[in-house]
Amino acid sequence: MINAVGRDIPDELLKNGKEVYQGKYYMDGKFVRKATPATRRCEKPQESKLCESIKEACKKCGAHDGMTFSFHTEFRNGDYVAAMVAKVLIEDMGLKDIHVAATSLGSAQNNIADYIEQGKITHVTTSGVRGRIGEVISAGKLATPAIIRSHGGRPRAIEAGEIHIDIAFLACASSDCCGNASGIGGKNNCGSLGFAIHDTHFADHVVIITDTLVDFPNLPSSISCTDVDCVCVVDAVGDPSKIATKEARMTENPRELMMAENAAKIIASTPYFKDGFSFQTGVGGPSLAVNRFLEDYMAERGIQMGFALGGTSNAICKLQDKGLVRHILDTQDFDQGAAAHIFKHPDHHEIDLNEYANAANKGAYVNKLDFVVLAALEIDTKFNVNVITGSDGVLRGAPGGHPDTAAGSKCCIIVTPLTRGRMATVCKSVVTVTTPGDCVDVLVTDYGIAVNPLRPDLEKCLDDAGIPRVSIESLQEKAYSLVGAPDDLEWEDKVIAVVEARDGTILDVVKKVKPFSF
Amino acid sequence: MINAVGRDIPDELLKNGKEVYQGKYYMDGKFVRKATPATRRCEKPQESKLCESIKEACKKCGAHDGMTFSFHTEFRNGDYVAAMVAKVLIEDMGLKDIHVAATSLGSAQNNIADYIEQGKITHVTTSGVRGRIGEVISAGKLATPAIIRSHGGRPRAIEAGEIHIDIAFLACASSDCCGNASGIGGKNNCGSLGFAIHDTHFADHVVIITDTLVDFPNLPSSISCTDVDCVCVVDAVGDPSKIATKEARMTENPRELMMAENAAKIIASTPYFKDGFSFQTGVGGPSLAVNRFLEDYMAERGIQMGFALGGTSNAICKLQDKGLVRHILDTQDFDQGAAAHIFKHPDHHEIDLNEYANAANKGAYVNKLDFVVLAALEIDTKFNVNVITGSDGVLRGAPGGHPDTAAGSKCCIIVTPLTRGRMATVCKSVVTVTTPGDCVDVLVTDYGIAVNPLRPDLEKCLDDAGIPRVSIESLQEKAYSLVGAPDDLEWEDKVIAVVEARDGTILDVVKKVKPFSF
Repeated sequence: MINAVGRDIPDELLKNGKEVYQGKYYMDGKFVRKATPATRRCEKPQESKLCESIKEACKKCGAHDGMTFSFHTEFRNGDYVAAMVAKVLIEDMGLKDIHVAATSLGSAQNNIADYIEQGKITHVTTSGVRGRIGEVISAGKLATPAIIRSHGGRPRAIEAGEIHIDIAFLACASSDCCGNASGIGGKNNCGSLGFAIHDTHFADHVVIITDTLVDFPNLPSSISCTDVDCVCVVDAVGDPSKIATKEARMTENPRELMMAENAAKIIASTPYFKDGFSFQTGVGGPSLAVNRFLEDYMAERGIQMGFALGGTSNAICKLQDKGLVRHILDTQDFDQGAAAHIFKHPDHHEIDLNEYANAANKGAYVNKLDFVVLAALEIDTKFNVNVITGSDGVLRGAPGGHPDTAAGSKCCIIVTPLTRGRMATVCKSVVTVTTPGDCVDVLVTDYGIAVNPLRPDLEKCLDDAGIPRVSIESLQEKAYSLVGAPDDLEWEDKVIAVVEARDGTILDVVKKVKPFSF
Repeated sequence: MINAVGRDIPDELLKNGKEVYQGKYYMDGKFVRKATPATRRCEKPQESKLCESIKEACKKCGAHDGMTFSFHTEFRNGDYVAAMVAKVLIEDMGLKDIHVAATSLGSAQNNIADYIEQGKITHVTTSGVRGRIGEVISAGKLATPAIIRSHGGRPRAIEAGEIHIDIAFLACASSDCCGNASGIGGKNNCGSLGFAIHDTHFADHVVIITDTLVDFPNLPSSISCTDVDCVCVVDAVGDPSKIATKEARMTENPRELMMAENAAKIIASTPYFKDGFSFQTGVGGPSLAVNRFLEDYMAERGIQMGFALGGTSNAICKLQDKGLVRHILDTQDFDQGAAAHIFKHPDHHEIDLNEYANAANKGAYVNKLDFVVLAALEIDTKFNVNVITGSDGVLRGAPGGHPDTAAGSKCCIIVTPLTRGRMATVCKSVVTVTTPGDCVDVLVTDYGIAVNPLRPDLEKCLDDAGIPRVSIESLQEKAYSLVGAPDDLEWEDKVIAVVEARDGTILDVVKKVKPFSF
């Protein structure tokens, strides 16, 4: 069936009430009944939930073949825990038909790629699929299609019972013997545990894995002991220095600076740019630079940001310390500066992925977002964005909060160079749709700005402010004129990944790419 | 069927899997699947959830006949909200067959007694039944037996689906337009919202009622906007001066002081009294005085309390400020001193009733309690305690956290005078069992101390410390010799209230008392 972004979704995926994507607010107002965990009653006083080993915890929680195990990746590229636990489950305990439900997967979980190849891990749901994981899934090695969900889509799927977590294994910087656990206070801190918290409310079993055991009660905590079955102490839960990838890189690239300046100019041209406005941006070059230009506009107008949302870098913490940002609502810390700032500044708050972006709760924070500035691997003339597949069709990205913030915000700005290497970023049709075009408002490239025709109000804002704009088709034509039209990818029939929209409908599928023949 | 505390439970109550009480850890280790709320999906950005009136909020949430409405009583005797909402539901909207699920009910909700008499309110579950509510229920005016649950029994029943809350109406000191709500930051502050929080996770609809609307986001908050449907602003949510009943009354009564001193002496004689010990006591005369004597022992031994648990008074806050208490885990604030202290002191934490005392989660804080000092209306020679019915058989008390802390703690000490007026407090058989004798360890009266024979280890502690003790039977005999044996109450057959044990089994029933005839 063809969905609202023009993708043909195989009928065999449309079972158990699964529907195709039908527009960004299709599910609004519908009632859902939340799924729930089973839990073991602990009436008797229990001195401690400490286990000697991860294996002992697995046994206590009844780990067996066919179960779904969840991991969070707040330690990002420095995470040790997901790989460590997968090794225990598969190599020490010999489990098979394992389902992995992760907030993301990447190079830190390369052994999971091995277990997929070995057929031990048979189901994967994740946001990110980077590194070898993406390669093996793209190569059709996973027994079932991977389900790619956004950061808001994951808690939605958990609450809907579409992901039922049997055991959540959660890396925490510190914990007491009963499982009051935090992302700070340890040897290796990640700051916010926004990716981990929601799992503790819906998993049948919760195992806290930490390298720093502290006195009971470890309060304030992000995870409550009342949700925790077991606590394991390991040598190290992660390498915080690897959390940051492009931390604090303030670009000097004049094209990036120009795009950032234009994004800030657009923001300042809208009626939403007033005292108390809310804002989210990513980490890395042009995004960080938007902060810098915005700072000037805020000073000029004498206004403050009401709240900054989402993944947090030190740059935004510094803006808060300067008094320009009232609240930071933080799902994950992109660098050690931010991890040290949360819980220190009284208005730098931890929020979980449900509060951040779940489209099926009573109103997530993304719904209160004025502006979001996002990147793209590709964007097409219908403003559909791809952040998951490379131009070769291989999985190497992550929707993260991209589709959630795009849908919830009043003004979603995509900033991307018109071409990357020999590839057109602005194209006729993206390889994979991860954020539907009805959620995207403005495109800023190094060759011009385009406003989505669905937003004549924003077109007028830009015109009134004297910001030149062009049609997205003209940008696509320019891109093709510079680097040529991309060759069509050739696909096999096998679906290797399903891209779920944040509301649970199917946005797109990724098929296996035909081996390249010379 | 006769249960483990010797009470005859009518068979008609033993349906839908309901069992009789079978000992304090009967349910330990069993698996339960949690019930869940329905929730309306809010995908679309929504500027505000403010309603013009409580009636508008009720309509938005679909209030109709036969629904269950929940209230919390963190404002205790000063609460305005439960009465205000009940009036709207019944007088303005004409609803009938209303089920009330409250954390407690008392004189602040006298109109609820009227609606019970009028037959509009047909089901009640609560902990406390004080004032006119207790009288009308005792008089058989409620259509169905009231269900009396402890503070831990309530979240258990909610999670088990035995209480399904259709709409929770929650009085909050401050809220933003989306429902991030707190017990502080308003005109009328109650401090901890420990009684309200858990309802927000399990009610189909949540309405925040506040008198102080603040800017979005009202963070840190106790209630998350993602769980809230509507926000109503009223003139006043309560009168905080009426929160405190016996606040800071440090007894000068020499009998009370002697009992308090003995309780402290017993605590100090046990192996649990060491650095990091945990402690809970109530508010009022002898209990507060225990704090004072304990302080001396702590100073003498050079030890600190690890955590103080439960309802919190200014006295314990002062101990924390002196450095004698590391953490306060606070479910409700008994006075404005405590309400001002929580969220100011970094180690004075809010916890909800689930974390506090639910016997069906993975380990509530009561399970980590070393000592609890509690009062009693009556205690019998099997150490069963009654805190719900007066000697006339009329409901006028509240189990609160009594059964939970008694079951979870290592040493539960009941402090009570041997007689009150012309009534024997220590008796052969309590009118109603609210805390089973297998959970009670020591009785301290003004005529002597008795240790439960189930605890020979504690008997030895007292003996080693030279603390004289007697049998509980001798105390009962002494009481009867002073004031005479109580006349047996005469009951009708009608069950007017069911006292549920914290694990959900039936501990006792209260029948209608025969009208007294001269």
